[in-house]
Amino acid sequence: MLGRTYDREVCSAARALEVVGERWSLLILRDAAFRGLTRFSQLQEALGIAPNVLSARLEHFVASGLMTVDRDEGHPRYALTPKGRELVKVVLALTEWGDRWAAPDGPPIEYGHEGCTGTVRLVTCCDTCGGSPPVEDIVARRTPAMEKALARRGRTR
Amino acid sequence: MLGRTYDREVCSAARALEVVGERWSLLILRDAAFRGLTRFSQLQEALGIAPNVLSARLEHFVASGLMTVDRDEGHPRYALTPKGRELVKVVLALTEWGDRWAAPDGPPIEYGHEGCTGTVRLVTCCDTCGGSPPVEDIVARRTPAMEKALARRGRTR
Repeated sequence: MLGRTYDREVCSAARALEVVGERWSLLILRDAAFRGLTRFSQLQEALGIAPNVLSARLEHFVASGLMTVDRDEGHPRYALTPKGRELVKVVLALTEWGDRWAAPDGPPIEYGHEGCTGTVRLVTCCDTCGGSPPVEDIVARRTPAMEKALARRGRTR
Repeated sequence: MLGRTYDREVCSAARALEVVGERWSLLILRDAAFRGLTRFSQLQEALGIAPNVLSARLEHFVASGLMTVDRDEGHPRYALTPKGRELVKVVLALTEWGDRWAAPDGPPIEYGHEGCTGTVRLVTCCDTCGGSPPVEDIVARRTPAMEKALARRGRTR
Protein backbone atom coordinates (compact mmCIF):
# COMPACT_ATOMS: atom_id res chain seq x y z
CA MET A 1 0.00 0.00 0.00
CA LEU A 2 1.11 3.53 -0.69
CA GLY A 3 2.70 5.37 2.21
CA ARG A 4 1.78 8.81 3.40
CA THR A 5 3.57 10.50 0.54
CA TYR A 6 2.30 13.98 1.28
CA ASP A 7 2.28 13.71 5.03
CA ARG A 8 3.42 17.29 5.64
CA GLU A 9 0.50 18.66 3.68
CA VAL A 10 -2.69 19.82 5.36
CA CYS A 11 -4.70 19.44 2.17
CA SER A 12 -7.60 17.33 0.99
CA ALA A 13 -6.17 17.16 -2.53
CA ALA A 14 -2.97 15.68 -1.09
CA ARG A 15 -5.00 13.15 0.90
CA ALA A 16 -6.84 12.16 -2.27
CA LEU A 17 -3.57 11.78 -4.15
CA GLU A 18 -2.31 9.46 -1.43
CA VAL A 19 -5.19 7.18 -2.37
CA VAL A 20 -5.16 7.51 -6.18
CA GLY A 21 -1.96 9.36 -7.07
CA GLU A 22 0.02 6.36 -8.22
CA ARG A 23 0.42 5.35 -11.82
CA TRP A 24 -2.65 3.63 -13.30
CA SER A 25 -4.88 4.20 -10.26
CA LEU A 26 -7.30 6.65 -11.88
CA LEU A 27 -7.44 4.70 -15.14
CA ILE A 28 -8.37 1.53 -13.26
CA LEU A 29 -11.20 3.44 -11.58
CA ARG A 30 -12.23 4.85 -14.96
CA ASP A 31 -12.53 1.36 -16.45
CA ALA A 32 -14.39 0.04 -13.43
CA ALA A 33 -16.84 2.95 -13.61
CA PHE A 34 -17.36 3.43 -17.35
CA ARG A 35 -16.56 0.06 -18.89
CA GLY A 36 -18.09 -2.00 -16.11
CA LEU A 37 -14.97 -4.15 -15.75
CA THR A 38 -14.98 -6.24 -12.58
CA ARG A 39 -12.38 -8.98 -13.13
CA PHE A 40 -8.63 -8.84 -12.73
CA SER A 41 -8.18 -10.41 -16.17
CA GLN A 42 -10.54 -7.88 -17.81
CA LEU A 43 -8.71 -4.94 -16.30
CA GLN A 44 -5.34 -6.42 -17.11
CA GLU A 45 -6.26 -6.95 -20.74
CA ALA A 46 -7.98 -3.61 -21.17
CA LEU A 47 -5.16 -1.59 -19.66
CA GLY A 48 -2.12 -3.63 -20.66
CA ILE A 49 -0.83 -3.07 -17.14
CA ALA A 50 1.72 -5.29 -15.39
CA PRO A 51 -0.13 -7.87 -13.26
CA ASN A 52 1.87 -7.10 -10.13
CA VAL A 53 1.03 -3.39 -10.44
CA LEU A 54 -2.66 -4.09 -11.03
CA SER A 55 -2.70 -6.45 -8.08
CA ALA A 56 -1.12 -3.85 -5.81
CA ARG A 57 -3.56 -1.16 -6.94
CA LEU A 58 -6.63 -3.33 -6.43
CA GLU A 59 -5.49 -4.43 -2.97
CA HIS A 60 -4.90 -0.82 -2.04
CA PHE A 61 -8.34 0.18 -3.34
CA VAL A 62 -10.00 -2.54 -1.27
CA ALA A 63 -7.99 -1.59 1.82
CA SER A 64 -8.89 2.08 1.32
CA GLY A 65 -12.59 1.37 0.87
CA LEU A 66 -12.77 2.41 -2.79
CA MET A 67 -13.69 -1.08 -3.92
CA THR A 68 -15.16 -4.22 -2.49
CA VAL A 69 -14.02 -7.65 -3.56
CA ASP A 70 -16.24 -10.70 -3.80
CA ARG A 71 -14.18 -13.88 -3.73
CA ASP A 72 -17.06 -16.33 -3.60
CA GLU A 73 -17.13 -17.43 -7.22
CA GLY A 74 -13.57 -18.51 -7.85
CA HIS A 75 -12.20 -15.44 -9.61
CA PRO A 76 -12.56 -12.37 -7.46
CA ARG A 77 -14.94 -9.68 -8.65
CA TYR A 78 -14.20 -6.05 -7.87
CA ALA A 79 -16.84 -3.36 -7.51
CA LEU A 80 -16.63 0.35 -6.79
CA THR A 81 -18.06 1.63 -3.54
CA PRO A 82 -19.68 5.08 -3.38
CA LYS A 83 -16.36 6.37 -2.01
CA GLY A 84 -14.58 5.00 -5.08
CA ARG A 85 -17.25 6.05 -7.52
CA GLU A 86 -17.02 9.68 -6.46
CA LEU A 87 -13.45 9.79 -7.70
CA VAL A 88 -14.94 9.64 -11.16
CA LYS A 89 -15.25 13.42 -10.96
CA VAL A 90 -11.45 13.58 -10.93
CA VAL A 91 -11.41 11.49 -14.11
CA LEU A 92 -13.98 13.86 -15.63
CA ALA A 93 -11.80 16.87 -14.80
CA LEU A 94 -8.72 15.20 -16.31
CA THR A 95 -10.70 14.23 -19.41
CA GLU A 96 -12.01 17.73 -19.99
CA TRP A 97 -8.52 19.15 -19.72
CA GLY A 98 -7.13 16.49 -22.07
CA ASP A 99 -9.97 17.05 -24.53
CA ARG A 100 -9.12 20.71 -24.68
CA TRP A 101 -5.34 20.61 -24.60
CA ALA A 102 -4.20 17.15 -25.67
CA ALA A 103 -6.68 15.81 -28.22
CA PRO A 104 -5.72 17.29 -31.60
CA ASP A 105 -8.12 14.92 -33.42
CA GLY A 106 -11.02 15.73 -31.10
CA PRO A 107 -12.29 14.13 -27.88
CA PRO A 108 -12.24 10.32 -28.13
CA ILE A 109 -15.18 9.90 -25.78
CA GLU A 110 -17.93 12.06 -24.40
CA TYR A 111 -19.70 11.70 -21.11
CA GLY A 112 -23.39 11.15 -21.66
CA HIS A 113 -26.28 11.60 -19.27
CA GLU A 114 -27.94 8.19 -19.06
CA GLY A 115 -31.60 8.34 -19.95
CA CYS A 116 -31.12 11.72 -21.61
CA THR A 117 -29.51 12.65 -24.90
CA GLY A 118 -27.28 15.26 -23.29
CA THR A 119 -23.59 15.32 -22.53
CA VAL A 120 -22.26 16.07 -19.08
CA ARG A 121 -19.55 18.54 -18.15
CA LEU A 122 -18.01 19.67 -14.89
CA VAL A 123 -18.64 23.31 -14.14
CA THR A 124 -17.70 25.55 -11.26
CA CYS A 125 -20.62 26.89 -9.27
CA CYS A 126 -20.63 29.65 -6.67
CA ASP A 127 -23.10 28.88 -3.90
CA THR A 128 -23.87 32.55 -3.36
CA CYS A 129 -24.11 34.30 -6.73
CA GLY A 130 -24.86 31.13 -8.69
CA GLY A 131 -22.20 32.05 -11.23
CA SER A 132 -19.64 29.74 -12.79
CA PRO A 133 -16.36 31.52 -12.03
CA PRO A 134 -13.28 30.88 -14.17
CA VAL A 135 -10.38 29.30 -12.31
CA GLU A 136 -8.52 32.61 -12.03
CA ASP A 137 -11.37 33.98 -9.89
CA ILE A 138 -11.18 31.12 -7.40
CA VAL A 139 -9.19 31.69 -4.23
CA ALA A 140 -8.26 29.27 -1.48
CA ARG A 141 -9.32 30.33 2.01
CA ARG A 142 -8.16 28.62 5.17
CA THR A 143 -10.84 27.24 7.43
CA PRO A 144 -10.66 26.97 11.24
CA ALA A 145 -9.92 23.24 10.73
CA MET A 146 -6.73 24.22 8.90
CA GLU A 147 -5.64 26.65 11.62
CA LYS A 148 -6.18 23.96 14.24
CA ALA A 149 -4.25 21.37 12.25
CA LEU A 150 -1.32 23.73 11.76
CA ALA A 151 -1.32 24.74 15.42
CA ARG A 152 -1.19 21.06 16.41
CA ARG A 153 1.86 20.66 14.24
CA GLY A 154 3.46 23.88 15.46
CA ARG A 155 3.42 25.38 12.00
CA THR A 156 1.92 28.61 10.80
CA ARG A 157 1.60 27.92 7.11
CA MET B 1 10.57 14.55 -18.94
CA LEU B 2 7.91 11.91 -18.41
CA GLY B 3 7.55 9.36 -21.19
CA ARG B 4 4.33 8.29 -22.82
CA THR B 5 3.28 6.17 -19.89
CA TYR B 6 -0.21 5.46 -21.14
CA ASP B 7 0.62 5.29 -24.81
CA ARG B 8 -1.80 2.45 -25.57
CA GLU B 9 -4.71 4.46 -24.22
CA VAL B 10 -6.99 6.47 -26.49
CA CYS B 11 -8.14 8.68 -23.65
CA SER B 12 -7.92 12.33 -22.76
CA ALA B 13 -7.65 11.53 -19.06
CA ALA B 14 -4.61 9.38 -19.81
CA ARG B 15 -3.09 12.21 -21.86
CA ALA B 16 -3.64 14.58 -18.94
CA LEU B 17 -2.03 12.13 -16.53
CA GLU B 18 1.01 11.95 -18.79
CA VAL B 19 1.43 15.66 -18.13
CA VAL B 20 0.56 15.83 -14.42
CA GLY B 21 0.37 12.23 -13.19
CA GLU B 22 3.71 12.14 -11.46
CA ARG B 23 4.18 12.62 -7.77
CA TRP B 24 3.95 16.26 -6.63
CA SER B 25 2.87 17.61 -10.03
CA LEU B 26 -0.64 18.62 -9.07
CA LEU B 27 0.44 20.01 -5.70
CA ILE B 28 3.01 22.23 -7.40
CA LEU B 29 0.27 23.55 -9.69
CA ARG B 30 -1.98 24.05 -6.67
CA ASP B 31 0.64 26.19 -4.92
CA ALA B 32 1.36 28.18 -8.06
CA ALA B 33 -2.35 28.84 -8.55
CA PHE B 34 -3.61 29.40 -5.01
CA ARG B 35 -0.57 30.54 -3.05
CA GLY B 36 0.90 32.62 -5.83
CA LEU B 37 4.31 30.99 -5.49
CA THR B 38 6.62 31.74 -8.42
CA ARG B 39 10.15 30.94 -7.20
CA PHE B 40 11.89 27.60 -7.01
CA SER B 41 12.92 28.31 -3.41
CA GLN B 42 9.34 29.23 -2.40
CA LEU B 43 7.93 26.04 -3.87
CA GLN B 44 10.71 23.96 -2.40
CA GLU B 45 10.14 25.36 1.07
CA ALA B 46 6.35 25.21 0.91
CA LEU B 47 6.22 21.62 -0.30
CA GLY B 48 9.28 20.13 1.36
CA ILE B 49 9.99 18.41 -1.94
CA ALA B 50 13.42 17.16 -3.04
CA PRO B 51 15.10 19.84 -5.18
CA ASN B 52 15.90 17.44 -8.03
CA VAL B 53 12.26 16.34 -8.20
CA LEU B 54 10.97 19.93 -8.15
CA SER B 55 13.45 20.87 -10.84
CA ALA B 56 12.34 17.98 -13.07
CA ARG B 57 8.67 18.85 -12.60
CA LEU B 58 9.14 22.53 -13.40
CA GLU B 59 11.20 21.77 -16.50
CA HIS B 60 8.52 19.37 -17.66
CA PHE B 61 5.79 21.95 -17.01
CA VAL B 62 7.65 24.55 -19.06
CA ALA B 63 8.32 22.05 -21.87
CA SER B 64 4.64 21.05 -21.84
CA GLY B 65 3.39 24.62 -21.94
CA LEU B 66 1.82 24.60 -18.47
CA MET B 67 4.20 27.25 -17.19
CA THR B 68 6.41 29.96 -18.54
CA VAL B 69 9.74 30.79 -16.99
CA ASP B 70 11.26 34.25 -16.81
CA ARG B 71 15.01 34.06 -16.26
CA ASP B 72 15.73 37.76 -16.61
CA GLU B 73 16.06 38.71 -12.96
CA GLY B 74 18.63 36.22 -11.71
CA HIS B 75 16.36 33.69 -10.04
CA PRO B 76 13.88 32.24 -12.51
CA ARG B 77 10.23 33.07 -11.96
CA TYR B 78 7.59 30.54 -12.93
CA ALA B 79 4.05 31.44 -13.96
CA LEU B 80 1.09 29.32 -14.99
CA THR B 81 -0.18 29.61 -18.53
CA PRO B 82 -3.92 29.28 -19.27
CA LYS B 83 -3.20 25.64 -20.18
CA GLY B 84 -1.65 25.07 -16.77
CA ARG B 85 -4.23 27.08 -14.89
CA GLU B 86 -7.09 24.97 -16.23
CA LEU B 87 -5.66 21.94 -14.45
CA VAL B 88 -6.80 23.63 -11.27
CA LYS B 89 -10.17 21.98 -11.87
CA VAL B 90 -8.47 18.62 -11.31
CA VAL B 91 -7.17 19.94 -7.99
CA LEU B 92 -10.69 21.11 -7.12
CA ALA B 93 -12.10 17.66 -7.87
CA LEU B 94 -9.42 15.98 -5.74
CA THR B 95 -10.03 18.47 -2.93
CA GLU B 96 -13.78 17.88 -2.88
CA TRP B 97 -13.27 14.14 -2.72
CA GLY B 98 -10.69 14.51 0.05
CA ASP B 99 -12.93 16.89 1.97
CA ARG B 100 -15.69 14.35 1.92
CA TRP B 101 -13.78 11.14 2.46
CA ALA B 102 -10.42 12.00 4.02
CA ALA B 103 -10.88 15.05 6.24
CA PRO B 104 -12.21 13.80 9.59
CA ASP B 105 -11.63 17.22 11.19
CA GLY B 106 -13.35 19.08 8.38
CA PRO B 107 -12.07 20.66 5.16
CA PRO B 108 -8.81 22.57 5.76
CA ILE B 109 -9.50 25.08 3.02
CA GLU B 110 -12.46 26.25 1.03
CA TYR B 111 -12.47 27.65 -2.47
CA GLY B 112 -13.87 31.15 -2.47
CA HIS B 113 -15.26 33.19 -5.33
CA GLU B 114 -13.09 36.29 -5.51
CA GLY B 115 -15.12 39.46 -5.25
CA CYS B 116 -18.06 37.53 -3.83
CA THR B 117 -18.62 35.96 -0.43
CA GLY B 118 -19.52 32.59 -1.89
CA THR B 119 -17.68 29.31 -2.04
CA VAL B 120 -17.13 27.47 -5.29
CA ARG B 121 -17.82 23.82 -5.99
CA LEU B 122 -17.52 21.62 -9.05
CA VAL B 123 -20.83 20.28 -10.22
CA THR B 124 -21.84 18.08 -13.12
CA CYS B 125 -24.09 19.74 -15.66
CA CYS B 126 -26.06 18.12 -18.50
CA ASP B 127 -26.13 20.38 -21.55
CA THR B 128 -29.58 19.16 -22.54
CA CYS B 129 -31.75 18.81 -19.43
CA GLY B 130 -29.69 21.22 -17.32
CA GLY B 131 -29.60 18.70 -14.48
CA SER B 132 -26.63 17.79 -12.31
CA PRO B 133 -26.46 14.01 -12.70
CA PRO B 134 -24.78 11.88 -10.04
CA VAL B 135 -21.72 9.99 -11.25
CA GLU B 136 -23.63 6.71 -11.56
CA ASP B 137 -25.83 8.28 -14.24
CA ILE B 138 -22.88 9.32 -16.38
CA VAL B 139 -21.90 7.01 -19.23
CA ALA B 140 -18.90 7.18 -21.56
CA ARG B 141 -19.77 7.22 -25.26
CA ARG B 142 -17.22 6.79 -28.02
CA THR B 143 -16.98 9.58 -30.54
CA PRO B 144 -16.03 9.22 -34.24
CA ALA B 145 -12.55 10.50 -33.26
CA MET B 146 -12.15 7.42 -31.04
CA GLU B 147 -13.28 5.02 -33.78
CA LYS B 148 -10.80 6.59 -36.18
CA ALA B 149 -7.95 6.41 -33.67
CA LEU B 150 -8.65 2.75 -32.94
CA ALA B 151 -8.93 1.90 -36.65
CA ARG B 152 -5.55 3.54 -37.26
CA ARG B 153 -4.08 1.31 -34.60
CA GLY B 154 -5.85 -1.79 -35.84
CA ARG B 155 -7.72 -2.17 -32.57
CA THR B 156 -11.43 -2.37 -31.95
CA ARG B 157 -11.57 -1.39 -28.33
